[in-house]
Amino acid sequence: MSSTLPRRLLGEALGTALLLAVVIGSGIMAERLSGGHVGVALLANTLATVGGLYVLIEVFGPVSGAHFNPAVSLVMAARGALEKSALPPYIVAQLAGAACGAWLAHAMFDLPLAQLSTKVRSSPGQWIAEAVATAGLLLVILRAPPARVAAMVAAYIGAAYWFTASTSFANPAAAFGRMFSDSFAGIAPASVPGFVIAQLAGAGLGVALHRLLGATDTRGA
Amino acid sequence: MSSTLPRRLLGEALGTALLLAVVIGSGIMAERLSGGHVGVALLANTLATVGGLYVLIEVFGPVSGAHFNPAVSLVMAARGALEKSALPPYIVAQLAGAACGAWLAHAMFDLPLAQLSTKVRSSPGQWIAEAVATAGLLLVILRAPPARVAAMVAAYIGAAYWFTASTSFANPAAAFGRMFSDSFAGIAPASVPGFVIAQLAGAGLGVALHRLLGATDTRGA
Amino acid sequence: MSSTLPRRLLGEALGTALLLAVVIGSGIMAERLSGGHVGVALLANTLATVGGLYVLIEVFGPVSGAHFNPAVSLVMAARGALEKSALPPYIVAQLAGAACGAWLAHAMFDLPLAQLSTKVRSSPGQWIAEAVATAGLLLVILRAPPARVAAMVAAYIGAAYWFTASTSFANPAAAFGRMFSDSFAGIAPASVPGFVIAQLAGAGLGVALHRLLGATDTRGA
Amino acid sequence: MSSTLPRRLLGEALGTALLLAVVIGSGIMAERLSGGHVGVALLANTLATVGGLYVLIEVFGPVSGAHFNPAVSLVMAARGALEKSALPPYIVAQLAGAACGAWLAHAMFDLPLAQLSTKVRSSPGQWIAEAVATAGLLLVILRAPPARVAAMVAAYIGAAYWFTASTSFANPAAAFGRMFSDSFAGIAPASVPGFVIAQLAGAGLGVALHRLLGATDTRGA
Repeated sequence: MSSTLPRRLLGEALGTALLLAVVIGSGIMAERLSGGHVGVALLANTLATVGGLYVLIEVFGPVSGAHFNPAVSLVMAARGALEKSALPPYIVAQLAGAACGAWLAHAMFDLPLAQLSTKVRSSPGQWIAEAVATAGLLLVILRAPPARVAAMVAAYIGAAYWFTASTSFANPAAAFGRMFSDSFAGIAPASVPGFVIAQLAGAGLGVALHRLLGATDTRGA
Repeated sequence: MSSTLPRRLLGEALGTALLLAVVIGSGIMAERLSGGHVGVALLANTLATVGGLYVLIEVFGPVSGAHFNPAVSLVMAARGALEKSALPPYIVAQLAGAACGAWLAHAMFDLPLAQLSTKVRSSPGQWIAEAVATAGLLLVILRAPPARVAAMVAAYIGAAYWFTASTSFANPAAAFGRMFSDSFAGIAPASVPGFVIAQLAGAGLGVALHRLLGATDTRGA
Repeated sequence: MSSTLPRRLLGEALGTALLLAVVIGSGIMAERLSGGHVGVALLANTLATVGGLYVLIEVFGPVSGAHFNPAVSLVMAARGALEKSALPPYIVAQLAGAACGAWLAHAMFDLPLAQLSTKVRSSPGQWIAEAVATAGLLLVILRAPPARVAAMVAAYIGAAYWFTASTSFANPAAAFGRMFSDSFAGIAPASVPGFVIAQLAGAGLGVALHRLLGATDTRGA
Repeated sequence: MSSTLPRRLLGEALGTALLLAVVIGSGIMAERLSGGHVGVALLANTLATVGGLYVLIEVFGPVSGAHFNPAVSLVMAARGALEKSALPPYIVAQLAGAACGAWLAHAMFDLPLAQLSTKVRSSPGQWIAEAVATAGLLLVILRAPPARVAAMVAAYIGAAYWFTASTSFANPAAAFGRMFSDSFAGIAPASVPGFVIAQLAGAGLGVALHRLLGATDTRGA
C-alpha cells in the first residue's frame, strides 16, 4: 500500500463498483434463469460472489487494502491501520462505487439504470443476522494470515449467504448500492438504516471478540 | 497454541457455536428456498458448511487447535497432543457451544429458540456411515500437512455429506447441538447415542488405520 | 517459457482446443441433463469451465504462457511480453485450436461434427458485458501474482459467467470456436463480430485501468 | 514414498476403496435426493468426487503415490517411477480396493452388497470421451507441480464429469468397481472392456502429448 491516495481511492471505488456489479448482476442472471426456483438462484448468486470477491481482494488488496466496506475502513482507522484523514474519502469512494456498480449491472442486462428496490428486509432475525455476519467478517479479516485473507473472506461470505437469515450483506456500502436495484439482490431504502446499524454493532462485536481471543493479529496495529 | 486455557476454551466454544450456526442456519435457509427439492437443499447446506468450516479452522486453529469435536479432542489427548487435564473442559466447551449455535441459528431465522428434533436417524447403514465418516476425518486430521488441514477437512466433510448415508456428522458435539433443532439438519435425541457410539468406534478405527499406514504424522506426538 | 516456438504453438492450439471442448462439451451435457432448467445447466457449465480453465492454465502456462486468447496475446505483444513476430502464429493456433475443440466436443457426444450456431447474441447490454468481462480479465491477468494467476482467472471467469449478461466469452477465439456449435454454448456467426469488437475495446480498457492503478505489474514488461 | 511395499499396497487398496465409496455413495445419495433431476444429481456427484479425490491424493500420496488407477501405475512403471515388480501387486490392490469400495457404499446405504450394474455405456462417442479423459488425466499428472497435483487432478476430474460424454471414469479400476453397483454410477460388465481399452489408448496418447510438449516433467524420470 505504497500507492498514492488518489490511486487508493480509485481502487476502493472501482473494486466496490465491481463487487456490486457481481452481486447484483449475478442476482439478475440467476433470477432470470432459475425459473422461479429461488434455491438455485441463490446458489448461483453465491458462487459468483465467492469467485468475484476472491479475485477483487487479490487484485485491489495491494492498491487500497481492498476494504470495499465502510465498517472495515472504520475499524482499520480505529486501529491505526488506516490514516484517520483517509477514512472520509474512503467511505465516499465506496458509496459512490457501490451505486455505480448497481448501474453497471443494469446496463449489462439492458435494464433501466435508475431503480429503487422495493424488497423489505426488516425483522429482528435479519438484524441479528447482519450483526453476526459482520462480527464474523471482522474476525476473519483481523485474524487471517495475509496470504489467505482473500480466500478466507470469500469462503466466509459464501457460507454467510446461507447461514444468516439476511444473506449476509455485512457491509454498509453493499446495502447502499443494492438500494438502487429493484432485483433479486435489492433492499428497500427504508430497510437500509436498520441493516447499517446492525452491521456497525456487529463490527464492534467482532473487534471485541478478536481482543478476547488474544494476539495473532495479522493485519493492522 | 500458546494461548491460556480460558482463551482456548473460548475458542472451542465460539468456534463450535459458529460451526453449528452454519450447519443449522444454512439447513434452514436451504429448506426454505428449495421448494421441496431436497437435493438442492443439501447442495446449499454442503457448500455453506465447506466454506464455513474452512474459515473456522483457519481462524480458531492458532487459538485452540480448532477441534470443535470431542472425538478429535479425545484422540489428541490419547496421543499427548492435548494435556489430559484439558480434555474435560474442552468437551464441555464444545457441547455448550454446540447448543448455543443451534439457538443462534434459530434467533437469526425468527424461530422459537428451544426446539427438539423429531428426525429419526437410526439404521445400521447410518451407523456404519458415521463410523466410516469419523474414521476418515481422523485419518485426514492426523495425516494432513498443517498448512492444508483446514482446506482438507472442509473438502472431506463436503464429500462426506454426500457419500455417507448419514450426511456425515462425524462429531459428537454436532450430534448434541443438532438435537436442539427441529429442522433440516436436526437429529432426534433418541438417535444421538447410536451416532455417538459409531463416531467413537470410527475414531478408533481411524487411529488404527493411521498407525498401519505408518509415519508421516504431522500433528500430535 | 524457454520452449521452442513450435512447442509454444502446439501448447496454444492444444490448450485452446481443450478449453473449447470443456466449454462446449459441458454445455451439451448440462443441457441434456438439466431437463429444461437453464439455471442448473449454467451452474454445471460454470463449474466445469472453472475446473478446466484452472488446470489448463497450470498445465500450459510453462509451455506457451497459456493465453488461449487473441486479445491477451495482443496485449502481451504490445507490452513486449510476447515477441511481435509470434503474435500472428499464436492467433492462428488459437483459432484453429478453438474450432478443433468444438469438433472434439461433438465427436464425444455422437453429434454431427460440422455445425453452425443459430443462437443470436446481439444487444447493447451484451456488448457492454463483453467489454466489461474482457477488461476485468486483463486486469486480473496483468495484476495477479504469477503463482495465483490460474486460480484467479478461473474464479474470475466463473463469476463472469453469471454477472455479465453475455456469460462472459471475453475471448475472440472462444467466440470463433463456439460459432461452430449449434448448442447451449454456441453463438451465431453474425453475432461474432460485435462480440470481438467489444472484447478488444474491453482489453484496451483493462490495460488503461491497470496503468491508472499503478505498478504491481507482475507479468510482462 | 519410503514406505514398505505392504504399506504402499495398503495405501492403494484403501485409497481406491474410499474413492469408489465416494463416487458410488454420492451417486446413490444424489439419485435419492434429486427427485429425478439428473442434472442436480450429477452436480452433487461431481462436487463430492472433487472434494474426496483431492483429500485422498493428499492423504495417500506420501504413502503409495496415490495412483488408485492401473493406467497411471502402468505409465509410472514404464517411465521408471514405479519398480516394475511392484506393478502387478499395485493393480491387484487397486482392483480389490475398488470392489470393496462399492460394497462399502452399499453397506452404508442399507442396500444389498452384491450387485451387478445393468447400465450400458457403449457408443463411439463414449469411447472417444474415455480416451480424451484419460489422456488429459495423464497430462495433468505428468506436468503438475507436485505441490498442486492433488488440487489439479481433482479439478480436472470435476470438469471431465461434465465435458466428456462418459462422465470420465478415466480409470480401469473405477470401471471395474462400478461394475459391482447397479446404481447411478454403475457400468454394465459388458461395457467395461470397451472403456478399459479406450482408457489405455488415452493414457498412451497423454504420454505422447506430454513428450511433444517437452520437458517440465515434474514427476517420474
